[in-house]
Formats: sequence, C-alpha cells, structure tokens
Amino acid sequence: MFPMETTTNNTLLQLQNAKLASRKLAKATFDKKNQVLELIAHELLSSKDLILSANEKDIELGQKNNLSVALLDRLLINEKRLNGMAQGIHKVIAQDDPCGKILSSWKHPTGMSIQKITVPLGVICVIYEARPNVTTDAVALAIKSGNAIILRGSQHALHTNQAIVNVIHNALHKSSLNKDIVQFISNKEREETIKILEAVNYVDLVIPRGGEDLKNFVLKYSKIPVIGAGGGTCHLFIDETASEDMALNIAVNAKTQRPGVCNAIETILIHKNIAGTILPNLEKVLKEKNVELIGCDKTQKIISVKPASEEDWHKEYLDLKVSIKIIDSLNDAIDHINKYGTKHSEAIITQDKNNAKTFQEEVDAACVYVNASTRFTDGEEFGFGSEIGISTQKLHARGPIALNELVTYKYLIDGEGQVRK
Amino acid sequence: MFPMETTTNNTLLQLQNAKLASRKLAKATFDKKNQVLELIAHELLSSKDLILSANEKDIELGQKNNLSVALLDRLLINEKRLNGMAQGIHKVIAQDDPCGKILSSWKHPTGMSIQKITVPLGVICVIYEARPNVTTDAVALAIKSGNAIILRGSQHALHTNQAIVNVIHNALHKSSLNKDIVQFISNKEREETIKILEAVNYVDLVIPRGGEDLKNFVLKYSKIPVIGAGGGTCHLFIDETASEDMALNIAVNAKTQRPGVCNAIETILIHKNIAGTILPNLEKVLKEKNVELIGCDKTQKIISVKPASEEDWHKEYLDLKVSIKIIDSLNDAIDHINKYGTKHSEAIITQDKNNAKTFQEEVDAACVYVNASTRFTDGEEFGFGSEIGISTQKLHARGPIALNELVTYKYLIDGEGQVRK
Repeated sequence: MFPMETTTNNTLLQLQNAKLASRKLAKATFDKKNQVLELIAHELLSSKDLILSANEKDIELGQKNNLSVALLDRLLINEKRLNGMAQGIHKVIAQDDPCGKILSSWKHPTGMSIQKITVPLGVICVIYEARPNVTTDAVALAIKSGNAIILRGSQHALHTNQAIVNVIHNALHKSSLNKDIVQFISNKEREETIKILEAVNYVDLVIPRGGEDLKNFVLKYSKIPVIGAGGGTCHLFIDETASEDMALNIAVNAKTQRPGVCNAIETILIHKNIAGTILPNLEKVLKEKNVELIGCDKTQKIISVKPASEEDWHKEYLDLKVSIKIIDSLNDAIDHINKYGTKHSEAIITQDKNNAKTFQEEVDAACVYVNASTRFTDGEEFGFGSEIGISTQKLHARGPIALNELVTYKYLIDGEGQVRK
Repeated sequence: MFPMETTTNNTLLQLQNAKLASRKLAKATFDKKNQVLELIAHELLSSKDLILSANEKDIELGQKNNLSVALLDRLLINEKRLNGMAQGIHKVIAQDDPCGKILSSWKHPTGMSIQKITVPLGVICVIYEARPNVTTDAVALAIKSGNAIILRGSQHALHTNQAIVNVIHNALHKSSLNKDIVQFISNKEREETIKILEAVNYVDLVIPRGGEDLKNFVLKYSKIPVIGAGGGTCHLFIDETASEDMALNIAVNAKTQRPGVCNAIETILIHKNIAGTILPNLEKVLKEKNVELIGCDKTQKIISVKPASEEDWHKEYLDLKVSIKIIDSLNDAIDHINKYGTKHSEAIITQDKNNAKTFQEEVDAACVYVNASTRFTDGEEFGFGSEIGISTQKLHARGPIALNELVTYKYLIDGEGQVRK
C-alpha cells in the first residue's frame, strides 16, 4: 500500500528532504519527467472520487466559516475543473525541456571549453490562496523544470490539497522519482510560513501567488529571493490616428472580458485630436457593458462622468470601472503610463508606425501591445503551457512566469590542467 | 566651458534626472554608445594630470587618516593604472550590444506577432569601496547596456571619483548624450545611501561592490532588487584518478596566484585512495609558497598540520591558508561542497569522465571546473569585457556580472485589432 500520511509537523525536515531529493531530480531526463507527469495526470482523474469528496469537506467548512461566494467558487472542484487540471499538466508535458539548454559555448584562449547551460533552481516554494488548481499547476511546472517544490496552500483548501498531494505522491511512488520532491506543508501556523521564508539553505525561490496582502507578507519576511506577481494598472492609449472601430472593440475587450484580472485595463488615455469624436461612442459601448466611467477635466466637458482624482490614476479597480484621460501627445501618454503604470501590460491603438515603435520602445512594461488587447498577457496565451503568475519585476522573470523562468544557469568549464598566469 | 560642478546635495533629484534621461539613453544605437565610450577613454587619458592630482589629495588624506597599506594601494592611481582603466573601457567597446537581441519570436494563433527582446534595466546604482577603477568600469558597462548609472563611491576616493566623473561628464557634453545618465552622489551621509536604496521608482537595480559589511548593509536597507557579489569559499577536489602533477599545479595556482580574491580556493578535498601518496607532495609545494595548512583527523595522520574545526570548512581565508579534508567518495566530496561552499567556483581533478560529469551536474555553483583552476572565474577571462562582480545567487545573474546581466527583456506584441475570446 502507498503511504497516505504525507505530511509532518517538522517543516524544516521537509525542506531538507526536498533539497536532498532535488539533486537527483535535476538529473532526470526529459522523457522521465514527462512520464511522471503523464502518470500524475492519469492518477488525478482516476482518483476523482477521493478528490471531489475531500473538496466537499472544504466547501462545507468554508460555508460554515462564511467564506464569500467568490472565494467558495475558486475553492470548488467539480469534474470539469478536475479535467481542466489534468489538461493543464498535459500542456506542460507538451513543452520543451527548459533544462540542459546550451545558452552559449566557446573556447578560452588556453583551450578550455566553457559552456553556459540551463539548470534547475533547486527547490521552489509556492505560497498560494484557496485555488486547488495551483497545486497541480505548480507541481507540473516544478517537475518539468527539474525543481523540488514546497507547497504552502490556504487552510481553506487543506483537505483538497492534501488529497491532490496524496495522489501525486502515489504517482511518484509508482515512478522511480523520490516523493520528497513534492512537500506539502499542512501546519496552519503563520510561524511555519515564516520558518520557510528564512530557510535560505534549503529553498532557492519563493513565489507568492495571490493578492497584495499575501505578496506583501512574503516580501516582508522572506530572506529567500522572491518573484511576485505584481498588480496590473494597465492602460490603453488611443492615438489620434487610431481606427475607431478597433479602439472601441479593444477597449471593451480589455476592460470587460474579465475585469477581475491583472491584465485588464484600468485607464484609457485618448489623444485630444480624436477625443471629441470617439468619446461619446466609447461611453456608449462601455455603458452597454455596465462599466462605470470617471474622467479628467477635459473628459468631463465631452461626456457626463464623475471626476477622476489623482489617486484614481494609480488604482487597479479589478472591476467594471475605468478612468479616462485626454492627453496632448504620444509623449504625454508614455509619461503617464511610466508614472502610474505597474510595468505589466500596456497598449496603443494607432495607424502611425513611428508612434507604435516609440510607444514600444519607451513604455517600461513587461508586455507592450500595438493594436491588440492587453488581455493576451498570459502564459498559456503566449504558448508557455501553465504559468504561475505574471511578474512585473525586471530581474530574472518578466511577464509570464513559466518553465523558462524556473531555471537558472551554470558555467561548465573543461580543461586539461589550465592555470591562470 | 564645461560645467565642472557636477554634484548636488539633492540626491532624490539626481535619481529622478537619471530616470528621465534613461528613457532616451535606452534608444541610443550601438555605434552611438561606442562613440561615447571612445570619447570617455580618450578624455580620461588626456585629463591625466587632473585625475592624478585629485588622487594625490585622496592619498594624502588617507595617510592622515591612517588607512591601511592595502587600502591605500587600491585607492592609488598612477599612469599605468589610468591606462588600464582606459583599456578596460576599450574592452567594453569591443563587446556586442546586449540590447535589442531577439531572444525569441513567434506568431500567436490569432496572427499577432510576439517578440521577446532584450532592453536596458533603466537605472543602475553601484555602491562601492575605495577603488576608483570601479567608477570607469561601471560607467562603461552601464552606457554600453543602455542604463543610466548612480555612482556611490567611498568617501576615501571622493576627489578622485569626482575628477573622473567630471571627465566623463565633459565627454558626454561633447557627445549628444545627456550627462544626467551618470550621477555621482558625493554627500557622505549614510542616510543618503539609504535614501537611494529606498527609491524604487527611480532605481531598478543596486549592485554593492565590496566586502561583506557593505553587501550586508545594502541587503538590509534596499527595497530595490540587489545583485550582490557573494563570498567565495571555493574547493578543489582531487579525485582518486587525478594526475598528480596536474593536481599539485592547479592547487598551487588556485590557492596562491592571488590569495585575496573570491575565486581562490579555501579547501582541498582529497580522495582517500590517493591521499597517502599526494599529501606529502602537496604539503611540500604549498609550503614552498608559504601556505599554512590545516586538516581533518585523517590528514593529520599523514602530514603534520594543525586540526581544522567545523568552522574552518565554512571559512573564506582570503589569505595563504588552506584547509584539507580526506573524503571517501565523489559523493562525499559533492556533499561537502554543497554544504560548505558558497556556490561560486568549484573544481575536480580527475581522469574519470563519469566522475567529471557527475561533479559538474551535482555541484551547485556558478562555475564548475574539470581539470582547471578556479581562478578563471572572471568576466574578463570569460571574454565578457569588464565585470562588476561575481554573483553567487541564482536569479537573473550567476557568475560574472557583465553586460548581458545588466539588461532585462520585454515582450513586444503587434496585432491588427486582436481581442481575447
């Protein structure tokens, strides 16, 4: 029989075990890693009843604890969602191996060969909220990138996550990979999380996946490098040469197709020369989608909207609300975006190729769009398989955090006795 | 006339100006950046008298303040060293442009084109000790990588650095690049440094270049991402099949060629099957170079050395001292290195290709050598031109921090009205 008790209260021991196991995992072949992921996807579906009944427990407890409808919806797993989780694993299987890529290689003047090659980071810790699909996404990305993983999920998803991890451990047990590469931290004390965040000898990277509070908590306590998904105060700039139909269509899509996500827009900037004609139509199409509009002084003179305050330009509404500003030039649009944006996703609608180029060059953001919706910023849309968030920082990972962002590199130098003069 | 007063007490204003100027610098062409660097190298040499006399002031003050001989030597600029600084700039000129490289590009199913392209980080701050050559190295790397730079040097080098920055500003003035891209912070208060480290809106990366105290200070206060050169507790593992001559030669080179640097070795691990024959000879060649040897219990039974304590295995002596340990197997050697090493540079001497491969795969370090000295870990030796330190962290930059480590990337997406379904 397989071990079903997969947790221990000794968090530090779990981290040590992950670190030890990561050394051999790093050498697992492409085929081996994919076989294990196939097995996990298969076991996930064949353990449907176990997982759904564990999820029912969490949902019941969540209802007793008065979790919000939105939170309960995120927590819920049904058959369709379980299939989606298995499909997510298959999308990771379909990706190239991020490890072992020779980034460059050359000869030193003394004849030594030097290779710069991608290798796993070692041990990754993901700290996340009550979304059980993150458990399988994170495990799939970690195994494929050759990293051991520490899972620190929400207490609200404890039974579900435990059931999923049991399934994963059973699959690892059937393969020859050490099950220590996947560690589930079930102890609910906040101090346990801090203990992880200080374990610089055992964990190489921490990824908080969730809201601002979680991210700030991790950044405050972590002594380990953090890649955090940042907020998205994204902009759409409608340039004076914009096609009106295209601008309206993209504005509606980028604001309303899914308003609660980080790549939705929060502010529309409009060139003064097109504002008079486009604004009434923009108001119409957005109001049809129940979007609340606020605007700058000039906007208020053209359509009837409440004023936007200085604070509004910073805000990520994550809701059916948008701020509108009329600006004098491309340069002013870029200034506004670089001042108020969060370096996530920014778009220009224009028919002027020079303006498009300047916008892409000078806007400081992970993804800069010309004549397309910001909603495409997404690991899956970009063809990376699953993602574990969108990074708005500039070091190591920018934009979707997927397989290629979960590796580092090392230099391998081969000589025949060379010494330095 | 050129402006000779290049500093201001308003640090924040300097940071803002650097950020503003960085937007245009990021668009400077390869040729333009190289022309400016040529001009700086030229002006540096033609301003020899100014720089050397400023340096004399710092040396005099340093002698009055009883700086150590080693520190005064680092601070000193003579004609030969000034030529070396100019040559350093020419080595950067000879490098490829790290910006504008298309890392990948593809079509989205909707027809949009997506490009992942390298771009400057924006504004880099280098905080360093009394080594004036860092001023020119850092400026050359920053300009070539399209980044504005904030220079925060040691107070002991104030006159020298100011003179060098004046020369650089004059060269920028003659070119059409805004001199705001190079900012020199002369205010000596510690609070000014902290002010910089908190300026997340204006500075994108901080690089401390100096000893552990400086690095720890920066890590403690910085809210900006830091890439710090870590210490180097580097190892040489002499495997049982090692060529004895090669092992002795490399041991002497890696320990004594320049003992005070991070890529020198601090511990020699010897396979038990070769220890009896090689240890007496190793003792002889190292003692000829005045190296103090300490060792484990087994070592003490073969040669006469003082015992190494548990603490010794962690130590970076940066001096003519080495600890020796006899180990039972390749696996034990890797365990020891991964436990006590600082992930910098590690070497194996072996004739066994499988052992070489296992060592390179399983040792967790920036640079892993087979049959060569660890002393080669260096930006210039690797052919990267100047470097600004060696990173022992795994995210973004590992090993030499040179031009390619001073850029990030962004995704440029070009559509024709695409929206997300």
